[in-house]
Amino acid sequence: MSKGSMRQRRIDSSEGFERVDLLVSGGTILTIDPGDAVIDDGAVAVRAGRIVAVGPRRKVERRCRPRRRIDARGHLVLPGLINAHTHVAMTLLRGVKDDQELMTWLTKYMFPLEARFVSPAFVRWGARLACWEMIASGTTTFADGYFFEEEVARAADESGMRAVPGEGILDVPTPDAKTSAESLARAERFLSEWRGHPRVTAALCPHSAYTVAPETFRRVRELAFRHGAPVMTHLAESAGEVAMVRERYGATPVRHLASLGVVDRSLVAAHLVEVDDEEIAILARSGAGVVHCAESNMKLASGVAPVARMLAAGVRLGIGTDGAASNNDLDMFGEMATVAKVHKVRALDPTALPARQVVRMATMGSAAALHMDSEIGSLEPGKRADLILVNTSGPEALPLFDPFSYLVYSARADSVDSVIVEGKILMEKRELATLDTGAIRRRALAFGRRIAAALPH
Amino acid sequence: MSKGSMRQRRIDSSEGFERVDLLVSGGTILTIDPGDAVIDDGAVAVRAGRIVAVGPRRKVERRCRPRRRIDARGHLVLPGLINAHTHVAMTLLRGVKDDQELMTWLTKYMFPLEARFVSPAFVRWGARLACWEMIASGTTTFADGYFFEEEVARAADESGMRAVPGEGILDVPTPDAKTSAESLARAERFLSEWRGHPRVTAALCPHSAYTVAPETFRRVRELAFRHGAPVMTHLAESAGEVAMVRERYGATPVRHLASLGVVDRSLVAAHLVEVDDEEIAILARSGAGVVHCAESNMKLASGVAPVARMLAAGVRLGIGTDGAASNNDLDMFGEMATVAKVHKVRALDPTALPARQVVRMATMGSAAALHMDSEIGSLEPGKRADLILVNTSGPEALPLFDPFSYLVYSARADSVDSVIVEGKILMEKRELATLDTGAIRRRALAFGRRIAAALPH
Repeated sequence: MSKGSMRQRRIDSSEGFERVDLLVSGGTILTIDPGDAVIDDGAVAVRAGRIVAVGPRRKVERRCRPRRRIDARGHLVLPGLINAHTHVAMTLLRGVKDDQELMTWLTKYMFPLEARFVSPAFVRWGARLACWEMIASGTTTFADGYFFEEEVARAADESGMRAVPGEGILDVPTPDAKTSAESLARAERFLSEWRGHPRVTAALCPHSAYTVAPETFRRVRELAFRHGAPVMTHLAESAGEVAMVRERYGATPVRHLASLGVVDRSLVAAHLVEVDDEEIAILARSGAGVVHCAESNMKLASGVAPVARMLAAGVRLGIGTDGAASNNDLDMFGEMATVAKVHKVRALDPTALPARQVVRMATMGSAAALHMDSEIGSLEPGKRADLILVNTSGPEALPLFDPFSYLVYSARADSVDSVIVEGKILMEKRELATLDTGAIRRRALAFGRRIAAALPH
Repeated sequence: MSKGSMRQRRIDSSEGFERVDLLVSGGTILTIDPGDAVIDDGAVAVRAGRIVAVGPRRKVERRCRPRRRIDARGHLVLPGLINAHTHVAMTLLRGVKDDQELMTWLTKYMFPLEARFVSPAFVRWGARLACWEMIASGTTTFADGYFFEEEVARAADESGMRAVPGEGILDVPTPDAKTSAESLARAERFLSEWRGHPRVTAALCPHSAYTVAPETFRRVRELAFRHGAPVMTHLAESAGEVAMVRERYGATPVRHLASLGVVDRSLVAAHLVEVDDEEIAILARSGAGVVHCAESNMKLASGVAPVARMLAAGVRLGIGTDGAASNNDLDMFGEMATVAKVHKVRALDPTALPARQVVRMATMGSAAALHMDSEIGSLEPGKRADLILVNTSGPEALPLFDPFSYLVYSARADSVDSVIVEGKILMEKRELATLDTGAIRRRALAFGRRIAAALPH
């Protein structure tokens, strides 16, 4: 510590002030804390990347002397949205041959394109494009599964986002490994390299129960245990998957993975469209995280996950967009709007999944699904300072009777004004601070031209 | 005609040029014509409010000398979106007590609030707020049903939008009439006053089969016939409505209205969630228009309309947002995204409702549902010049493999750059040209405060 900063600290304490790095003041704070406190004309104070105070503006201002101040008047201030399941590099395959029969789409388009184009550069620029889209739409943390995940980790790190990049593991050759043994070796290096990073949590992503053998799952589990790493997978996404896994292993995907010991507090499982009550109980009891991907499940015609039953059972349940090749964006506002509506019509009950609960799912719910709920997901002292400002200036915000209704039913990604992660401003008044968007656009368009030229007709 | 303009015309023709008012040039034109032509580096020429040429830019430019030019490079140019069912004044009730049981929401909140607050001023400012929201999200035409519809007509006229405002008729006292006879007299004055307006088509809106008596429907039909006016209604929106109408009249809502002679080419019926194949055949044969309100039907838990079967039967089928009290916005981009996805998951078929078909539904489909398809809904010479420019500059547009996929699955309301109706620019580079948005905001917030103070807890 320099003498300057020691002197500074003395001066602060002598005047009864606490020096903070950033003060976000004047907005309506949606804390998403256990009591769901909403603070009009509130403030959030940040020091060293963490929240040190949340409360009424006058009270926080009396206590804090900020280096930097953001005027949040006229805005909602809430925890950054957490996209708990995506494949960010697939932004470069966004909108390639939509609306196809699933097997045609996969075998005729996706798999050949991935085999041909997925490289470190592809993942690097796809991930950068995704970070641009996510920051601009209020997402502060994302969980990812793909190949060359060190590139995703680097892109997230450069962009200032928080991320859980998971190295993809399959028992077939992948763009970054010929065998699952090679994948596991890659994964181990990846976990070691990123150990201790404050914002990047390296993870493992065994693809699914139908593409990863039991023995590989056991190795994944052992590796995850040694590194304390999260394990992410696709689980019970469709009736077809259930039939395939049942035929091969004599059990449903959830029961099959449970029998391998994979369903535990390190697991983050996406989709869970096809699950019965006993499987829901297994998930809840195990403490595994579950990620609901409503729009992807609708667009790919997989089905509608039993979200109300999972919530009632106490499953750690969050929201994800899935990759942009399926969904076709990384817009958590669109996802919240869809989640709120599709479960109402599914249950024929307009009180299902009220707006407040959906905002909680996209913040604390996703944090819990990623087992990061002690660090992110709400605005409470001690937590990481990941927060967003959402404007209320558009016609779709008027008149504003309920901030949660606005966020879920009429706000849009572009309503996000400013984004802060770990106390650092990544976007302010819609200007991105950490990314060269011009370069990203040029590279994305160049990849697009090459991919379009390679498309079968 | 002045001597000046005669001289001008001679000069034009001597040089082989045609003088036009506006040339939109350089974008990718999605014509939505019968062959679904897409023209890269195209142009649209407009004179006297109508399209006079659509084609490759060089060809159109050789022929036309424009007074005004809009550079559409980097944009998609398409027909303005047509919101074929809404209640624009209800923007002022947006988000009042969402997520309630339907009868509680109606009887405890909506009806008392409407009885207390709906006045000419309420409708005027609610409609102006809605015009702001609709123009800013690429809607050029809307069809409306409410009370004091002359205020909606005036707001649309001032804003430059095209509209089909329908005077609400019920057999219970309404904010603007004590009896249906008084409503009908109001409606007749309204139809007379707006006769011949180039952009405003006054209409009748008998609320529904369960709130309007057979005799009143007959009077509506007679009045509509005399004035050549459209008749808009809510039809077969929920199982509850079907049960109520069946009990009272011994027939389903569609059959009941058909027996009254109301189901014909003047009818525009919204919702149609609960219809069987015979009723779909009745609708198709009659030439009646049908408006699908997917998000409203989901949020209010009414159900999912059988859109694929209606399209297959040849029903004139368009898209509407419903009012902002139910949905909670007037965003046709959000509506397109939902329509494309909800029918895929309903049918468990990812090829259902492809993006191109959904864009057609929101343009030509809605035009056909409103029986205006000879005038609007596509970019073809002779049609009214209602068009929008959509940017492709956001990260969610990259890379752009298919413009229809982009419009439906990842573009947003704020992707709309410019809006032209009847050849007049209503928004350019997101700057609104015809509305005092500051005044609208102040009045909307003032109404919001009064309404919030009156809400029961």
